[in-house]
Amino acid sequence: MAVNLRPPQLLHPVPGVRLGVAQAAIKKPGRDDLLLIELAAGSRVAGVFTRNAFAAAPVLLCRERLQTGSGVRALLVNAGNANAATGAGGLDDARATCAAVAQDRQCLPEQVLPFSTGVIGQRLPVQRMLAAVPRAGAALAEDGWLRAAHAIMTTDTVPKGASRRVETSQGPVTVTGIAKGVGMICPDMATLLAFVGTDARLTQPAVRECLRGAVADSFNSVTVDGDTSTNDSCVLFATARQGARDIGVTHPDFGIVAAAVREVCVELAQAVVRDGEGATRFVTIEVGGARSVEEARRAAYSIAHSPLVKTALFAGDANWGRIAMAIGKAGIEGLDPAGVDLRLDDVMLLAGGQPHPEYREELGAAVVAKPEFTIGVGLGRGQARARLWTCDLSYDYVKINAEYRT
Amino acid sequence: MAVNLRPPQLLHPVPGVRLGVAQAAIKKPGRDDLLLIELAAGSRVAGVFTRNAFAAAPVLLCRERLQTGSGVRALLVNAGNANAATGAGGLDDARATCAAVAQDRQCLPEQVLPFSTGVIGQRLPVQRMLAAVPRAGAALAEDGWLRAAHAIMTTDTVPKGASRRVETSQGPVTVTGIAKGVGMICPDMATLLAFVGTDARLTQPAVRECLRGAVADSFNSVTVDGDTSTNDSCVLFATARQGARDIGVTHPDFGIVAAAVREVCVELAQAVVRDGEGATRFVTIEVGGARSVEEARRAAYSIAHSPLVKTALFAGDANWGRIAMAIGKAGIEGLDPAGVDLRLDDVMLLAGGQPHPEYREELGAAVVAKPEFTIGVGLGRGQARARLWTCDLSYDYVKINAEYRT
Repeated sequence: MAVNLRPPQLLHPVPGVRLGVAQAAIKKPGRDDLLLIELAAGSRVAGVFTRNAFAAAPVLLCRERLQTGSGVRALLVNAGNANAATGAGGLDDARATCAAVAQDRQCLPEQVLPFSTGVIGQRLPVQRMLAAVPRAGAALAEDGWLRAAHAIMTTDTVPKGASRRVETSQGPVTVTGIAKGVGMICPDMATLLAFVGTDARLTQPAVRECLRGAVADSFNSVTVDGDTSTNDSCVLFATARQGARDIGVTHPDFGIVAAAVREVCVELAQAVVRDGEGATRFVTIEVGGARSVEEARRAAYSIAHSPLVKTALFAGDANWGRIAMAIGKAGIEGLDPAGVDLRLDDVMLLAGGQPHPEYREELGAAVVAKPEFTIGVGLGRGQARARLWTCDLSYDYVKINAEYRT
Repeated sequence: MAVNLRPPQLLHPVPGVRLGVAQAAIKKPGRDDLLLIELAAGSRVAGVFTRNAFAAAPVLLCRERLQTGSGVRALLVNAGNANAATGAGGLDDARATCAAVAQDRQCLPEQVLPFSTGVIGQRLPVQRMLAAVPRAGAALAEDGWLRAAHAIMTTDTVPKGASRRVETSQGPVTVTGIAKGVGMICPDMATLLAFVGTDARLTQPAVRECLRGAVADSFNSVTVDGDTSTNDSCVLFATARQGARDIGVTHPDFGIVAAAVREVCVELAQAVVRDGEGATRFVTIEVGGARSVEEARRAAYSIAHSPLVKTALFAGDANWGRIAMAIGKAGIEGLDPAGVDLRLDDVMLLAGGQPHPEYREELGAAVVAKPEFTIGVGLGRGQARARLWTCDLSYDYVKINAEYRT
């Protein structure tokens, strides 16, 4: 089902990071659904989280514990239950599972970050999770990234991971990340669950800045269905195992590491869309000629969220009238249709708001018949640009989400 | 497919209004697809139109010709082609069809309003329409409302009409209206095509005020798929045939007539949702406890537009976690989940942001198994309220829109 997406072939281990999985029968038995990530002492950690007002209990706890931004020693992740809309009891549950990790890993409960994904509104099966924590701890290994990517899947059909090695002035640095998520995808800060580790000696401010920049260009530039999860979380940890000198935001190596982190995040974010629920098309939307990036993003999201555009993409129908409709309803003050250009890959459809004289239906049809293509829009009123990635809306999206709880 | 919707049983003729239909083979031959509405001299007319920046040629022409607000003698409506995103040529086409009506009806071209609905981005088959205008003129009759409702359908499965008779101080007044539309429905001013006539002697300001109030509570409170059409138009015409004294906005009869117009518009707007593309559920969303009506509407639309909520409704799944997610992502500044209540009809699910102790899955399931029910939300932070109507997202929505042009 996923569009041009295969399981990751090579995920480099990151010195200072060990991962272990276990079966906790959280939603159903017989699959790995609990992941423990252990970080070396001295790691610097930053996270970005959902802005949904119904933020889940683990998100609330993560925010609290990341205030200081240092001292994190472990992350506990479960699939099958989001621990969202669970009130005070949900916070107690998250704290209890972190305490079990602290006991197993010999650290403080406040040094453990919890993450959950799955059904909203049900309490965690805490006892089964507590019993599984020591098994995950016993399984910790530096090469556990792919198994970890498997363990955090819900309706994902392909495990998602990406990895880079780059040369810095202090030697080679590794960046490896995993993510999960295929629905309720319209991140407003970060997306679902993504964990990215590096052994670079980034300072705490540098970790934050690195994550902020990477997320803006990756997880905050994708949408599957326009629904923003209660559990979106993206965390970057730098174990500082490589090199001897700290890399601050002004250090020459910062740009190299930041670019690698961004590449990993973009690959993960694209993987989320390629595996979007029911997706048969992977579509890049590029909007230029806007007065501001915000305006360009508004037009791009209006196209990406339109059910009529998405169903036309599913049908392989170059129904550009629906794209024009979506641009027109984006609420761009004073937009003049006579300045708007529209293309599918290199095929011009609209020029100056009017059908392009050389456009023929077969040209557009040939583009949208492909599994991957670009919708290009020029608003003709400025220089700002934005790009995002989305997928189509198919029968299977409805099927998956109509049957998810049954 | 439509939810509890039957063709209108009785549409009272409106003195001063005659309607005639004809076959113009606009999209395909063999069906009535052209409608001519003739208004008596002295009628007062007001319209509201889409705010989509790609407003169709007929919308642009209507806006221009309604500036004066008087003198309109005829409306020409076609189905099968939206005459949108057609540039200057589209305006010429609309003017040409109006000129043919003017010739047939012996009035000025500026006294004719054009309306189109159908595929975007294709030129009108003007010659076939010009040939059909005299046939529509010859068919004009006061009892033509139901045939008119049929002629403007596109993917509608049921013709939509509503009618009221109310007593005023000057005797009985009739209000009758028709509408079409089942997809690209999230009106931002009016919806698709709706035509409402009355014989009340409303003044020009009274016609405008009457329409403004009725549209806010009806067409501007429904959504099928969140997509705003390029052609939304709603027109109210008062032929002034009943009574001898004008009814201004302060006249005692104004409230009576306005209430009847509102009732007709609400019934038509609900019919649009009941016949929403692929709809199997008709859902009322009521949001209270908001700080402003705008805030209440934002929460309501966030629920109504969520694909995850809509697919759960299709499945008859009381998946309230998705409703909570949708409230949470609505962007309501400082919303405290601990103040939020949620119910399905009379079944409480969330009280103060936490699962209600007496809630059981079977209670929610019994509500959402019905074809019609209410999602009630309390935001717990103010007194403002809003209500809107929507439908679910089914396989058939995808099917209809993936196949519309083929």
